[in-house]
Amino acid sequence: MNPLRIGHGYDLHRLEPGLPLVVCGERLEHDRGCAAHSDGDVVYHAVTDAILGALAQEDIGQLFPDDAPEWKDADSRLFVAEAVRRMHTAGYTLGNIDVTVILQRPKMSPHKAAMRDNLVALLQTDPGNVNLKAKTHEKVDSLGDNRSIACHVVVLLQTT
Amino acid sequence: MNPLRIGHGYDLHRLEPGLPLVVCGERLEHDRGCAAHSDGDVVYHAVTDAILGALAQEDIGQLFPDDAPEWKDADSRLFVAEAVRRMHTAGYTLGNIDVTVILQRPKMSPHKAAMRDNLVALLQTDPGNVNLKAKTHEKVDSLGDNRSIACHVVVLLQTT
Amino acid sequence: MNPLRIGHGYDLHRLEPGLPLVVCGERLEHDRGCAAHSDGDVVYHAVTDAILGALAQEDIGQLFPDDAPEWKDADSRLFVAEAVRRMHTAGYTLGNIDVTVILQRPKMSPHKAAMRDNLVALLQTDPGNVNLKAKTHEKVDSLGDNRSIACHVVVLLQTT
Ligand SMILES: [Zn+2]
Ligand SMILES: [Zn+2]
Ligand SMILES: [Zn+2]
Repeated sequence: MNPLRIGHGYDLHRLEPGLPLVVCGERLEHDRGCAAHSDGDVVYHAVTDAILGALAQEDIGQLFPDDAPEWKDADSRLFVAEAVRRMHTAGYTLGNIDVTVILQRPKMSPHKAAMRDNLVALLQTDPGNVNLKAKTHEKVDSLGDNRSIACHVVVLLQTT
Repeated sequence: MNPLRIGHGYDLHRLEPGLPLVVCGERLEHDRGCAAHSDGDVVYHAVTDAILGALAQEDIGQLFPDDAPEWKDADSRLFVAEAVRRMHTAGYTLGNIDVTVILQRPKMSPHKAAMRDNLVALLQTDPGNVNLKAKTHEKVDSLGDNRSIACHVVVLLQTT
Repeated sequence: MNPLRIGHGYDLHRLEPGLPLVVCGERLEHDRGCAAHSDGDVVYHAVTDAILGALAQEDIGQLFPDDAPEWKDADSRLFVAEAVRRMHTAGYTLGNIDVTVILQRPKMSPHKAAMRDNLVALLQTDPGNVNLKAKTHEKVDSLGDNRSIACHVVVLLQTT
């Protein structure tokens, strides 16, 4: 069994007026939110895919199909929790994780501590193993034009 | 010698009508394909660059210049094979690799198993060390508008 | 203490006519450059965030706010140096780092060796642990239209 495994997660959602914006388990005040089958949490989706990817298991779209009624408006923490369960079953724990959110508006900084707490609890790890940062897209392309939100994640798993 | 090395690969190709679409060694049915000097396989190119990057060697553009006649319409598995040869020469084997393809259409899922098999053979590793997933780009920007295809790769190499 | 830690850095800057273009400490001849509070070095910024991210510490925007007068037109090597100082204080050294710059024009290849030398010196590591590569964006989106420049970084830290 590999002593360490690496995973990569990427997700993007379109932002549309009149929808709630949920990022890493926190509701942000904004004039628009994510068009998605579930709650559209771009961080939880990318984190889920990074862990599943490190394990070389089925991805989020295969485990939780976006045409399945049971995942309509689902709380995406369920997806992270399932990835964590699979990680433990496979004999791994979280080494550390680094999350980059790309979002032109609103500012994520007031929510950063709460978001990190959410991840620490879900990933069952120490706060020192979880990092979250936000970047704007400098007003270019759909990300910069406030029409989408994206997230990149890298994760390192280690044997228990 | 570092016991482990990390690498990152990124590639993007423009999609244009009337060209074949080859992704991770599989020909996909589509109304367009990649404009490229070689066969334009965005996954094989990003995997090649991730391995070469982990080794801190010359990148795919330096080893296989896109103005060199010998690589015109080349089968990109040659590029991956050369990166793997260099990895072994440097004293490393694949730890694990996680590939994310971004493609609005067509669906990659019917081809996923075959693509993974191609990578497993080329990388000379166990299937449990190779992961491949696909995401759409939610109809925004050139990726979402079916005018391009992109790929992100992270890889972990370990000493033999 | 984790024997290894992974980090991810991403940065993007808008390119505008009449500004200097500084990439990884090198001044490139071009008809435009980065609009930024500091010198706008997209590589140094992404490298800084990758190291800080691996350490799960505050990010570049928190440590060096872009509305702080002391960082106006700052040389971004200061930011990398501070991340390296924090890495050493935390008991880590650089394992290896892989940097991917996305830039339609000008060609980065004539500057690649100098850029790598800059990083090797700043990161206080061996040349074999530092990799830098460049990709175009195939003329699509703001990156392909020469209106922006971006950088992805992955880094592995190891205990000293
Ligand atoms: Zn999603
Ligand atoms: Zn390519
Ligand atoms: Zn920057």
